[in-house]
Amino acid sequence: MRRDSLLIDLPEPKDADPDAGAALNEILGGQFGEMSTLNNYMFQSFNFRDKTKLKPFHSLVASITAEELGHVELVTTGISLLNNGPPSKAPTAHPADAPYAHMRKARDVAGFAMGAGAGLPFDSNGRPWNATFTFHTGNLVLDLLHNFFLECGARMHKLRVYEMQTDPVGREVLGYLLVRGSVHAQAFALALKKLTGVEMTNLLPVPNITHDNIPEARKFEVEGRHRVLYRFSDRDYADIAGIWSEDETTYDKTGPLEVVDLPPDPGPDSLKAMEGSASSFTPDYAPEEILEIARKLYGKAKG
Amino acid sequence: MRRDSLLIDLPEPKDADPDAGAALNEILGGQFGEMSTLNNYMFQSFNFRDKTKLKPFHSLVASITAEELGHVELVTTGISLLNNGPPSKAPTAHPADAPYAHMRKARDVAGFAMGAGAGLPFDSNGRPWNATFTFHTGNLVLDLLHNFFLECGARMHKLRVYEMQTDPVGREVLGYLLVRGSVHAQAFALALKKLTGVEMTNLLPVPNITHDNIPEARKFEVEGRHRVLYRFSDRDYADIAGIWSEDETTYDKTGPLEVVDLPPDPGPDSLKAMEGSASSFTPDYAPEEILEIARKLYGKAKG
Amino acid sequence: MRRDSLLIDLPEPKDADPDAGAALNEILGGQFGEMSTLNNYMFQSFNFRDKTKLKPFHSLVASITAEELGHVELVTTGISLLNNGPPSKAPTAHPADAPYAHMRKARDVAGFAMGAGAGLPFDSNGRPWNATFTFHTGNLVLDLLHNFFLECGARMHKLRVYEMQTDPVGREVLGYLLVRGSVHAQAFALALKKLTGVEMTNLLPVPNITHDNIPEARKFEVEGRHRVLYRFSDRDYADIAGIWSEDETTYDKTGPLEVVDLPPDPGPDSLKAMEGSASSFTPDYAPEEILEIARKLYGKAKG
Amino acid sequence: MRRDSLLIDLPEPKDADPDAGAALNEILGGQFGEMSTLNNYMFQSFNFRDKTKLKPFHSLVASITAEELGHVELVTTGISLLNNGPPSKAPTAHPADAPYAHMRKARDVAGFAMGAGAGLPFDSNGRPWNATFTFHTGNLVLDLLHNFFLECGARMHKLRVYEMQTDPVGREVLGYLLVRGSVHAQAFALALKKLTGVEMTNLLPVPNITHDNIPEARKFEVEGRHRVLYRFSDRDYADIAGIWSEDETTYDKTGPLEVVDLPPDPGPDSLKAMEGSASSFTPDYAPEEILEIARKLYGKAKG
Amino acid sequence: MRRDSLLIDLPEPKDADPDAGAALNEILGGQFGEMSTLNNYMFQSFNFRDKTKLKPFHSLVASITAEELGHVELVTTGISLLNNGPPSKAPTAHPADAPYAHMRKARDVAGFAMGAGAGLPFDSNGRPWNATFTFHTGNLVLDLLHNFFLECGARMHKLRVYEMQTDPVGREVLGYLLVRGSVHAQAFALALKKLTGVEMTNLLPVPNITHDNIPEARKFEVEGRHRVLYRFSDRDYADIAGIWSEDETTYDKTGPLEVVDLPPDPGPDSLKAMEGSASSFTPDYAPEEILEIARKLYGKAKG
Amino acid sequence: MRRDSLLIDLPEPKDADPDAGAALNEILGGQFGEMSTLNNYMFQSFNFRDKTKLKPFHSLVASITAEELGHVELVTTGISLLNNGPPSKAPTAHPADAPYAHMRKARDVAGFAMGAGAGLPFDSNGRPWNATFTFHTGNLVLDLLHNFFLECGARMHKLRVYEMQTDPVGREVLGYLLVRGSVHAQAFALALKKLTGVEMTNLLPVPNITHDNIPEARKFEVEGRHRVLYRFSDRDYADIAGIWSEDETTYDKTGPLEVVDLPPDPGPDSLKAMEGSASSFTPDYAPEEILEIARKLYGKAKG
Repeated sequence: MRRDSLLIDLPEPKDADPDAGAALNEILGGQFGEMSTLNNYMFQSFNFRDKTKLKPFHSLVASITAEELGHVELVTTGISLLNNGPPSKAPTAHPADAPYAHMRKARDVAGFAMGAGAGLPFDSNGRPWNATFTFHTGNLVLDLLHNFFLECGARMHKLRVYEMQTDPVGREVLGYLLVRGSVHAQAFALALKKLTGVEMTNLLPVPNITHDNIPEARKFEVEGRHRVLYRFSDRDYADIAGIWSEDETTYDKTGPLEVVDLPPDPGPDSLKAMEGSASSFTPDYAPEEILEIARKLYGKAKG
Repeated sequence: MRRDSLLIDLPEPKDADPDAGAALNEILGGQFGEMSTLNNYMFQSFNFRDKTKLKPFHSLVASITAEELGHVELVTTGISLLNNGPPSKAPTAHPADAPYAHMRKARDVAGFAMGAGAGLPFDSNGRPWNATFTFHTGNLVLDLLHNFFLECGARMHKLRVYEMQTDPVGREVLGYLLVRGSVHAQAFALALKKLTGVEMTNLLPVPNITHDNIPEARKFEVEGRHRVLYRFSDRDYADIAGIWSEDETTYDKTGPLEVVDLPPDPGPDSLKAMEGSASSFTPDYAPEEILEIARKLYGKAKG
Repeated sequence: MRRDSLLIDLPEPKDADPDAGAALNEILGGQFGEMSTLNNYMFQSFNFRDKTKLKPFHSLVASITAEELGHVELVTTGISLLNNGPPSKAPTAHPADAPYAHMRKARDVAGFAMGAGAGLPFDSNGRPWNATFTFHTGNLVLDLLHNFFLECGARMHKLRVYEMQTDPVGREVLGYLLVRGSVHAQAFALALKKLTGVEMTNLLPVPNITHDNIPEARKFEVEGRHRVLYRFSDRDYADIAGIWSEDETTYDKTGPLEVVDLPPDPGPDSLKAMEGSASSFTPDYAPEEILEIARKLYGKAKG
Repeated sequence: MRRDSLLIDLPEPKDADPDAGAALNEILGGQFGEMSTLNNYMFQSFNFRDKTKLKPFHSLVASITAEELGHVELVTTGISLLNNGPPSKAPTAHPADAPYAHMRKARDVAGFAMGAGAGLPFDSNGRPWNATFTFHTGNLVLDLLHNFFLECGARMHKLRVYEMQTDPVGREVLGYLLVRGSVHAQAFALALKKLTGVEMTNLLPVPNITHDNIPEARKFEVEGRHRVLYRFSDRDYADIAGIWSEDETTYDKTGPLEVVDLPPDPGPDSLKAMEGSASSFTPDYAPEEILEIARKLYGKAKG
Repeated sequence: MRRDSLLIDLPEPKDADPDAGAALNEILGGQFGEMSTLNNYMFQSFNFRDKTKLKPFHSLVASITAEELGHVELVTTGISLLNNGPPSKAPTAHPADAPYAHMRKARDVAGFAMGAGAGLPFDSNGRPWNATFTFHTGNLVLDLLHNFFLECGARMHKLRVYEMQTDPVGREVLGYLLVRGSVHAQAFALALKKLTGVEMTNLLPVPNITHDNIPEARKFEVEGRHRVLYRFSDRDYADIAGIWSEDETTYDKTGPLEVVDLPPDPGPDSLKAMEGSASSFTPDYAPEEILEIARKLYGKAKG
Repeated sequence: MRRDSLLIDLPEPKDADPDAGAALNEILGGQFGEMSTLNNYMFQSFNFRDKTKLKPFHSLVASITAEELGHVELVTTGISLLNNGPPSKAPTAHPADAPYAHMRKARDVAGFAMGAGAGLPFDSNGRPWNATFTFHTGNLVLDLLHNFFLECGARMHKLRVYEMQTDPVGREVLGYLLVRGSVHAQAFALALKKLTGVEMTNLLPVPNITHDNIPEARKFEVEGRHRVLYRFSDRDYADIAGIWSEDETTYDKTGPLEVVDLPPDPGPDSLKAMEGSASSFTPDYAPEEILEIARKLYGKAKG
């Protein structure tokens, strides 16, 4: 099932800043970006061994996979907002007047030629995400150890990309992802602790900086979002409570852990709809006709 | 939202056939595999321009994206089944007795070293899926034209991989995907027809062979699955009916088109659970302890 | 057979603008650049099935392949001109005085280290062209559909790169390629129409902007270059007239189609000869001796 | 200009041998294959510095480029013949009867899924050719040194692939390419000798085996093909005679060197036309209609 | 400093088994092979932050780097031995008699065309090692956590490759590497324990199988090689004893830990010298002359 | 054996200049960088055929391999110094204040997100080094010819990167590498001369510029470093004197050649120790505790 809204509301960008967007791309298509976390957990959950016998562990990986899809959407939207800026400031010059002359100085020219500022699964240097970033062995301890490492590595990358961001859009996206990534790190740490007795949560946070220092993350912790794991189902996966349980607290001892069905839905308006732009041929150079066609089709569908 | 079941039931494989699994990998991680269709539509839907004004077109891409996730799961499971064969025939020799000596003749040794037969997003030659297989320009006609081409190319690849399969598992997976892929090809053709008046559906099928010749596809058409588009939501995307409508018939004129909320759920049993195997260290060499731990955690979660 | 001249005359660049050159590289080594069109059609023509029976279709692909070689040369020359600028403005400082200090801020440093500003088959982000950008299935309809899509995608990429160009060199190259690319799109559309009856030309132009808006393209249409297909032979391929025929007009109805042997030859002077530069060691740091040797060899060859 | 014939006649293959075809692919899309030689010389000739002053050297590289195009066509055809075998032995079973079940044991499954046995620019392990195999610095001595090395490396690869071939098709292709590759090695050696006085030809042959030991190469030497350089023009490039001149002999002292306009044309029949195959959907599953369309278009073009 | 001997003696291979060699390649050029461990630790040690203040940690990474060089040599030699087999069984047929016809069925044809059976840094599917397999952030805990994970992942890959090996050469190489890899895993675990107090060694072994079950590993443990860390210097790195100390025991409690200068040198004879082979042109087809030249140069050097 | 010092002393950088560091990366991870020379010679030496009979040639390649390790360390350190600048100028702002906002304009953002300015094996465009840059055939003449070409190509790349450098650090690194690279080019030229009689040294230098024009190289020639080959052993490899002998002079006739055990050790202080930086989380955000732990461990190890 899919719903048509982002996980959180995003502010409007102040200006187009394609280099900020390119930096944020590291968190989408980089080795430690959301495409990597999504695909790692997705293929681990699809290939899980003895899933019936190891149900709480399978459910943990499966429900985190579902959340990662939302993360991919969120960071994609953030990149697109940063690349394009507010519609009011979009180039309007005629193609023959080189409306994107400035873009040839930008970091990701190939990305612009392809997507006109869309968020695509490439890293901050424009290198394509690839499947060698997916780890799955079927060995439970090893896969969980990998996931724990992956979340710590991802946190480092998010922090450094955050340190390059000045626009509120990129900072908001990263603040939220830092909080949720830490939940996932802790979830895998707890799973390892249950299996081996090793107090992996004592390694956290990696790097050793609390979110009290990151205002855009802090605010989501105030809402308690660092204490909850979402199961993204009203039917399955309830057994993650065997691992993520009220007996445990957050790694920084700020409160008990909790399982929740779904993250709060900020509603359809949360989706910053990208507007079309004639000068980038989106949805086309002269879109009037297709907009009219769409209007009619929509009317027809509504009945 | 995620549910814990496959789109269809799969038979049990007759034997381990890692080369059949490797061939099927083309449809998972190849240029025209399900990772490509998923990521193309996912990033097109996340970056859609003027989505409010072009709602039926956005909804079309978004709901097909949701279905593609299920396709990735299905083909992943199929590969895993073919690679591992039925649990009753799994190698049980001790590691020092080279239980996988035969695997060094197999086509995808690196895949075995990583995943012990798991389905991973690589192609039939073991090359990793990469993001250059993702196309998104934001230009509506061009993106739809691409998607139409992609589905036709994917159909060709599925047919040729089907011609290499003798085990029922691979054939069943491909039969289903051929039917659903044709629905998607037709959906994009209809979208282009609405926008331009060009009768794109008259190009279908590409290649020019009907599913009457493919028994594993034919049976899903008998159920009518070639006439329906799923919207994967009970709240959003109903407006795809503006494009995929009862006014239209399937490209081969066998019946009217229909929008349905979700594909029928074959139930949790549909998930062929991979069993662990000590000789491939999945979930581990000596898993007794972790199975016992999992049992207790599950009990605790159940209350 | 090969002749020593470009397809058109190019102006002299106003200044070195390596970032404009790097942007133009998208049209050489990018996924939708001339290396892709060349190699797609080349391998399709070399591997053509039933070429005798399908002669007009084979001839179409074969003769377009020949033209694409000239496109590769043209865009390569354009990149080189933009990267190096006019010889009168080339750096002359001594190597120890860091004559290329400014180049470390440029977009394609690796390209400079290799080719000192040459046009090489990499994209605008410096990623190498690779063979996964080649599509060939041997299925006639599918390959033509791909080619039609490829030309539309290439047109989008050319337009967006054009929008980044301010120097006349890049704009002239792109103006010409836009016109010829549209001819090729139309040729594949007509081939599909002959085969299936579907009016593919009605999809054109993609994106929906006419060349009246692109002065550097418009001027070649005034010469009628949008109406002609070249067969690049005085012996073979005349049968392309079965597809590209005087019965048909251009997709925008501006005139009848025509087959011509070769594009007009602007003559040897059309080749903007790159001058050597001691500070980039081309043809060498102290080239006097080798220039003298070459002069003598040339004299000897002339007799 | 392009002509519709191969450089030499090829025998008919005895059987389909896809692994022999895959091995031959090393000479098409491998690091030392014909795609590499073609693109190296093509981009060197397009970007040549001081080409007017260094005319014989530019002409040398430019005319060898033209020949390499024919080599790419030749080896592509050889691969296709080996992969498909004689039409009389092509699979004719129905798709549902798994006519290509044996192909899942072959070395290049992805290549079959894409091209049904076509020769495509990938290496013998199925890795795509990429542009990092292109070398161009603009420094004359360095580029010629590279080309000399490249031809020696290519000869080694051809010899080892030859040692894997038992079918006459692969051996014939390689025999011819060994002879012509040696001509190119010698040409670059002579160019370096003219420039530096170093007797580079004394390094030849690398490896140290004469073609007297390779019957399929020997026969082309008997025809004298090891003594001639083709200029592929009746207008340009005559000045290569300054380097490749009658004053010089072949490196093994078997005769004087000579410049010739074009290699002898074995005529259109030399092109082994790949036949279509319904079971691989080439040109389609049910091609009758399109063959009929093509026949009419051809008739119309003929007038 | 470098010495001319392997870390251990290797048996002679029983037969050429290129597929066993290709499988072993996973441990050389695969994501979890020795090239990865070498380059990870090498670049971490070269870029170490605050190395003076964090000396024992830097010394740990630096001395393990030195050992990894020997591992790369060992596994390279093992691959070469498996690929080529004993010299007495090398093909001696003339090149025109296709002495390597059987190689076109082997898994790594491109590797043979390049290296005639040499061990090269590619994985078991022939994919090149690449630098994205190198991890370095400069954050001490994160880098050590990565290294711990890397060694566990490498152990899994070694075990699965071991399960494919029947020839003593491959098994001996892997037995030794399993023991030394476990030492490195434990070393990084201890470093993390010193820094965080978390008992990381309690996670070991991953996977959960002891070397008592692997005879080729067991024998090196009998020699005590699982208890020692080598510092590869008589001047530097002694301070690793702060981490790897006699206060600690092996993770399986079989004895105290110890620091040693160098591994025992089995002497120059340990190097299985690859013999040349005329039919693979190594050192050449007719090597007599160069062998004679070398003999004289050696005599001259000896005085 | 490994020692804890660089090959030469390096100056302190004047400022952080990440784009200068990125340019220098070409000489680390580029196709013609030190990773390429290291791995080429390393794998050639590990796989050497008939090494006993061809001892002087094996020793030559083996001892140059050892030196290349030091080159990798040197250029890595140079990159790191340029990227980070002097510690006194490191950013100290709090992470929430975007202390690296300027880095999003830098050329290698992914490199910063990973390594915070560390030197990593990627090229100047951020593309990962990969194993296709490794050449080894086992044919002695061909491998030596390759190595000679590789050193000439590497010299060109070093010169062009040098022309982009203004900070003394990058220039010093390159000055030294130019001198030592020329020694290696000459060594391979001499080896070829011994084997074939061809005066390969007469091709040098390529490009044709003497080090008299490069002050940072010149100063090492004044010390005579262009005349010596290091054997990196007090036991093995002395027989390189058969090739690199006092009978020969440098290619520019400035003095006799000489074999020396080791390059002079500038001492441990030569290692510019990277300092940690809280704002890049190296060794961590709040490193006090781990620094204290390390101090104690060091004390314990010292006894």
